[in-house]
Amino acid sequence: MIRLYVTSDLSPGAAVAPTLDQSRYLTQVMRLGVGDALLIFNGRDGEWRAEVAEVLKKGVILKAVEQTRPQVFGPDLELIVAVVKKARVETIVEKAAELGAKRVRLVVTRRTNTDRIRLDRLDAIAEEAAEQTGRLDVPVIDDPVKLEAVLDGWEDGRRLMFCDETGGAPAIGALTAEGPGPWAILIGPEGGFSPEEGERLRGLPYATAVSLGPRILRADTAAITAMSLWQAAVGDWER
Amino acid sequence: MIRLYVTSDLSPGAAVAPTLDQSRYLTQVMRLGVGDALLIFNGRDGEWRAEVAEVLKKGVILKAVEQTRPQVFGPDLELIVAVVKKARVETIVEKAAELGAKRVRLVVTRRTNTDRIRLDRLDAIAEEAAEQTGRLDVPVIDDPVKLEAVLDGWEDGRRLMFCDETGGAPAIGALTAEGPGPWAILIGPEGGFSPEEGERLRGLPYATAVSLGPRILRADTAAITAMSLWQAAVGDWER
Repeated sequence: MIRLYVTSDLSPGAAVAPTLDQSRYLTQVMRLGVGDALLIFNGRDGEWRAEVAEVLKKGVILKAVEQTRPQVFGPDLELIVAVVKKARVETIVEKAAELGAKRVRLVVTRRTNTDRIRLDRLDAIAEEAAEQTGRLDVPVIDDPVKLEAVLDGWEDGRRLMFCDETGGAPAIGALTAEGPGPWAILIGPEGGFSPEEGERLRGLPYATAVSLGPRILRADTAAITAMSLWQAAVGDWER
Repeated sequence: MIRLYVTSDLSPGAAVAPTLDQSRYLTQVMRLGVGDALLIFNGRDGEWRAEVAEVLKKGVILKAVEQTRPQVFGPDLELIVAVVKKARVETIVEKAAELGAKRVRLVVTRRTNTDRIRLDRLDAIAEEAAEQTGRLDVPVIDDPVKLEAVLDGWEDGRRLMFCDETGGAPAIGALTAEGPGPWAILIGPEGGFSPEEGERLRGLPYATAVSLGPRILRADTAAITAMSLWQAAVGDWER
């Protein structure tokens, strides 16, 4: 069944206008017509069975019929990731949506080679991945800011899993020792953190340094691996 | 330091001719000249410090100087993966090299939409990822065969981690209960296994069904996640 992320409020009988791209996908790719069913969600009102109510010259109108799942949210996991090459940032955002991150914060570190970031494109990737993965919300993607600024404004009670190539406790054990709750995972740039950054990170009282094994991982691999281990150790995979 | 995978035998003073592509990379991209150093490995003789001995009109000659690391192999992990879209197969091969798989076996299942497989391109991807990740061998990539044939010819003593979307024990617990040794991870096609395939897999005495959480994962994500959890639970990440 097709799943579509929409922004309108959802209630019984509510009319919903998807974007032009979504409309084209429904009518031209999936060949839906009036009366055909699909699932929609908006990140607030759960998942709804909807029908195509009208096919207009430009766009379609959907009608929400009934709620199929109440709104739920995944665990409170943020992915903080240094800006890397565009293709790898896009992979990371797609995988963050699949692996249940709530928010992706792009950061600039000392050794970041900033590539052009198109936030609208990243939002579209996150929405499409959320549609396909079955979740009921879409991760928020933030504009790049400096890593220092993120650390300066750190939220009370949020722990930080920090992938340390210079060594650290094995990930699973280090995470289960800490337990669930609000977390963030930090993935550095391809060139690693600078010595000053590494020193600051290792000194943070809320940070846990973990090792992702003996091989050097590219940034996208490290992000996917870290999120997988986090979900399996303290996220919602064991429930 | 540049790391290059070569096929020649390595011993003190041995002359090594890299491929033309590698030669171009060394001289034109990395601007190496006679006397400059790099690391080379062949999957048999460990890692060696080498020097550029001669720059010819076409290609370069390297000279092996001394062994920097003895040959080691990662854990005995095979990734068995249904053929999916070309770009995703390429991602999977790259990540299998980074995450320490020894062999990637492509399989055709009932619901596989076979895409064109270029084994030479997959080999090149595996070699490049092995060079960057620091390992001393390159995963072997096998031509696609039928899943049934792989199961019919199953090797004694090898266990199978099988990602079951219809439910299974949480991955970490299910794996640590089984312990280390020769393993394979099986990743199905985007459409999942057929009911007959699922039944056969669940009935295999050497198979462990694991769950990768409540969200639907694309094939490449499932492969990366499964290899990460395997390495963390019973591979070489805890050593």
